[in-house]
Amino acid sequence: MVGVVGSGSEDPALNALAEEVGRLIAEAGVTLVNGGLCGVMAASAKGANRAGGTVVGLLPGDDPLAANPHVNVVLPTGLGEARNLLIVRAASVVIAIGGGYGTLSEVALALKLGRPVIGLGTWEVSEDIIKAASAMDAVKRALELLSVQE
Amino acid sequence: MVGVVGSGSEDPALNALAEEVGRLIAEAGVTLVNGGLCGVMAASAKGANRAGGTVVGLLPGDDPLAANPHVNVVLPTGLGEARNLLIVRAASVVIAIGGGYGTLSEVALALKLGRPVIGLGTWEVSEDIIKAASAMDAVKRALELLSVQE
Amino acid sequence: MVGVVGSGSEDPALNALAEEVGRLIAEAGVTLVNGGLCGVMAASAKGANRAGGTVVGLLPGDDPLAANPHVNVVLPTGLGEARNLLIVRAASVVIAIGGGYGTLSEVALALKLGRPVIGLGTWEVSEDIIKAASAMDAVKRALELLSVQE
Amino acid sequence: MVGVVGSGSEDPALNALAEEVGRLIAEAGVTLVNGGLCGVMAASAKGANRAGGTVVGLLPGDDPLAANPHVNVVLPTGLGEARNLLIVRAASVVIAIGGGYGTLSEVALALKLGRPVIGLGTWEVSEDIIKAASAMDAVKRALELLSVQE
Repeated sequence: MVGVVGSGSEDPALNALAEEVGRLIAEAGVTLVNGGLCGVMAASAKGANRAGGTVVGLLPGDDPLAANPHVNVVLPTGLGEARNLLIVRAASVVIAIGGGYGTLSEVALALKLGRPVIGLGTWEVSEDIIKAASAMDAVKRALELLSVQE
Repeated sequence: MVGVVGSGSEDPALNALAEEVGRLIAEAGVTLVNGGLCGVMAASAKGANRAGGTVVGLLPGDDPLAANPHVNVVLPTGLGEARNLLIVRAASVVIAIGGGYGTLSEVALALKLGRPVIGLGTWEVSEDIIKAASAMDAVKRALELLSVQE
Repeated sequence: MVGVVGSGSEDPALNALAEEVGRLIAEAGVTLVNGGLCGVMAASAKGANRAGGTVVGLLPGDDPLAANPHVNVVLPTGLGEARNLLIVRAASVVIAIGGGYGTLSEVALALKLGRPVIGLGTWEVSEDIIKAASAMDAVKRALELLSVQE
Repeated sequence: MVGVVGSGSEDPALNALAEEVGRLIAEAGVTLVNGGLCGVMAASAKGANRAGGTVVGLLPGDDPLAANPHVNVVLPTGLGEARNLLIVRAASVVIAIGGGYGTLSEVALALKLGRPVIGLGTWEVSEDIIKAASAMDAVKRALELLSVQE
């Protein structure tokens, strides 16, 4: 699985990037996992879902109805922000798009657990984050990293 | 989603029950969620998977390779037995088949959270557990409860 | 540490038992860990606190003010019922007093993790639960089990 | 409670800072919560413990013996890195000293949850982190923030 983490607020430019990332992941036949809510989470889910892909949404709360409508597998964890770690654990590679402190925690946890992190307009806190030039570049790198792991 | 909880050890009679339960859930077009390991978890996943269904496996450890081969969506939670609660939260109805103390904890958490529990040869600790006579009876009741919730 | 689990509703007889259990644990110089809320949790904390003991309260929510006033160390976990597992993991021995499905989940998780469980008017679901005749008997057995572990 | 987060590896200069921070927190009569292991965690615990303070250690694993010897209240969470969030939730103010990606995740989660973060030679990823000039300066600011919250 590829994880997509990013802002929960609505930014048209980031959402467009996220939707393209989701679409390309699904077209590669890979499952997408994210936090199941709004913003980058909903946009990447929408892109993947429309391309026929599978989207797993790990919600912080315990209400499955809080998920955006593009998630296929809804998991209301009830663990609050501790669900950020579950996204990172489930993903073999993480793509970070924009984002605030929640996204920063996911990037940090991914780096801590040794998951490769690909960044698109996100936190630049470490040289370990692979900077991507576009949605297509980000997904291309993620797929290369997935194939190396297998 | 319907959750299937039960023994992680291998009991041929319980495994046969679990496999039939998994198959019937998948044939109804419903996603199955369980703990992703052996025994009842693997057997119900096998039944669902062979019938073309989707199986979500929430593992206690952090190694995705610990999942049985019939799980489609592998989530290594790294939370230990705390993953039992996630199974119950993700499921709208829980079917319990045999099982030891881990299963008892799942039954108790399900009842605590108000999830209906259907029992097949499992702990008889409460009149709130709906006793099923067979795999078919268990799934029939689970599907009825799902349709009421919608 | 000794864990005390039990009903969150107010039952005068159970609360009296719980308060005595808390007092005796503190008088033995042992720290008490529980769920930090009402009923058996508050009563056992009160007994321990008044006897000069230390009480650790693991809350399900994220508001520290939800703790009863007798807890010395308040930990708002924000993990919901997953905090039940943390109580059991923190305790070397668990005393269960009365209780509903939440308590049953704690008893089951304790037995699953190999923690001895001493019962006072609680779920009788396994011969592995040591039945105590009184608060004093329960704490005496808990202290014996603690000293064996050291 | 004040949380102290930081590197788990042994750096003499950071450890000296951490030990002084721990001592000053304890001398102010405030409880310290940290991750219970090595490096900054052990040094801050040592400083607090020697000054007669209380130290709560939230361990990632399930073995209480993994705690450093200066922790008074050992909580083996078994939740892996998800325990980072529990430290931040338990603390009203967080002091970050040095540290790697684990510390960065704790800083990010603290900022996400609205906990003030005071930094001593740590990640400089946000203007929301209050830079302290010394151990004494860090604790002075932490205590001021605590008194404002009350």
